[in-house]
Amino acid sequence: MNKVAKKVNAAIVIIGNEILSGRTQDSNVSFLAKWLNNLGVSVTEVRIIEDKEESIISCIKEIKKKFKYIFTTGGIGPTHDDITSKSIAKAFNLSCDYHKEAYEILKKYYKAQEFNEGRKKMAKIPDRAILIYNPSSGAPGFIVENVFCLPGVPSILKSMVEGLKNKIVGGEKILSKTISINTVESEIAKPLEEIQNKFKNLEIGSYPFFRLGKVGISLVIRSTEQKLIDDCCKEIVSFMKKNKIQITER
Amino acid sequence: MNKVAKKVNAAIVIIGNEILSGRTQDSNVSFLAKWLNNLGVSVTEVRIIEDKEESIISCIKEIKKKFKYIFTTGGIGPTHDDITSKSIAKAFNLSCDYHKEAYEILKKYYKAQEFNEGRKKMAKIPDRAILIYNPSSGAPGFIVENVFCLPGVPSILKSMVEGLKNKIVGGEKILSKTISINTVESEIAKPLEEIQNKFKNLEIGSYPFFRLGKVGISLVIRSTEQKLIDDCCKEIVSFMKKNKIQITER
Repeated sequence: MNKVAKKVNAAIVIIGNEILSGRTQDSNVSFLAKWLNNLGVSVTEVRIIEDKEESIISCIKEIKKKFKYIFTTGGIGPTHDDITSKSIAKAFNLSCDYHKEAYEILKKYYKAQEFNEGRKKMAKIPDRAILIYNPSSGAPGFIVENVFCLPGVPSILKSMVEGLKNKIVGGEKILSKTISINTVESEIAKPLEEIQNKFKNLEIGSYPFFRLGKVGISLVIRSTEQKLIDDCCKEIVSFMKKNKIQITER
Repeated sequence: MNKVAKKVNAAIVIIGNEILSGRTQDSNVSFLAKWLNNLGVSVTEVRIIEDKEESIISCIKEIKKKFKYIFTTGGIGPTHDDITSKSIAKAFNLSCDYHKEAYEILKKYYKAQEFNEGRKKMAKIPDRAILIYNPSSGAPGFIVENVFCLPGVPSILKSMVEGLKNKIVGGEKILSKTISINTVESEIAKPLEEIQNKFKNLEIGSYPFFRLGKVGISLVIRSTEQKLIDDCCKEIVSFMKKNKIQITER
């Protein structure tokens, strides 16, 4: 069995100066990564870029062949700084005029006298794109080849991805188990490395934390094989017990 | 006056599978972006990458010439998954052995019998690197050329950057003003674009929000020139008043 062939990867591209300036804290990466992970897709790179046409075009051109799926967030609204649609169109050499289906959706969503220029702009979507329906606020996202374009507002994004599950063909799901212990990383670095070296096709991540004035480490064991995870956890737990290191979560 | 020449850019590289898996919510981007902005440095790209040697090396090689400053976070601790130091060394063709000063710092920080292999590993820092002192937990970060390597734990990172101010030569500081209004983006997209077109060297970002069941927009006006910001705000406020759109923050 070739494990590598079964891995399916994705990249997330966050488009938005508000994230780069530090004004807004992104939460879409964490949500999308977990959602994709459940479908057997690993996010292996994230880029946060400016909402400038040349930044979007060069980013998409550079990465579109490197990942099975690419998800963009942000920049598909009605205002002047929403330039994702026309930039994605350019990255794929497509035209970007009124998309018939998107236009009809928006026309129905807004009353005739409310269907102004800004709202019509949201129907300008790359030629040949497949729409991603928006149960929250009308304006659709879209798919061009392997690039899925979603809005930046987390609640709207969340409402839209549910309809996408059948568009994603994932690989084996990555399973994980967390063991939290009451010590510092530098106390257990060497034995932990030895355990990691014993288990191939499994990844032990070590993450120090500070909670309520206490320090500790969360060890996250990830693999596509539950048995490997269970065996590795046994080994870790047995080491901690032998060395009288308190386990606070398992 | 050439505005462009005065802009100083930076990239942030977050190294860590825990962020990519969605398990941990990053907060370092927002903190570093604001801290750099105050020093007149704009973060114009962020990458979140796997803690794999080849990912770190190829990322750094690709971007090191594109940005005045690069900040990495994560992967400088004592465990097997902490591989930032040796990867950065490889990206710059440097050796990565015990750094004399870092070794002395760590030796002093830990008692002799506590200075184990994991702790010694944290003294392995690229040759010729300048240290970034760590007032929280001993282990230093380091600077190689324009790449500043910091830890991933937010509280430790915060304690370390304070000593870096004199190492950063920023450009003009980017000032900003936020006006929040009680309407939806699609109502004001067209007039807002017209205001944006009037003001060059100034950027109006439009960010919809949903708070306590109410929808609204925050307009963020950013420029290096306070007068431009003031003039633009006046125009926005006057438009909102004329069109009876409630201003909730200014």
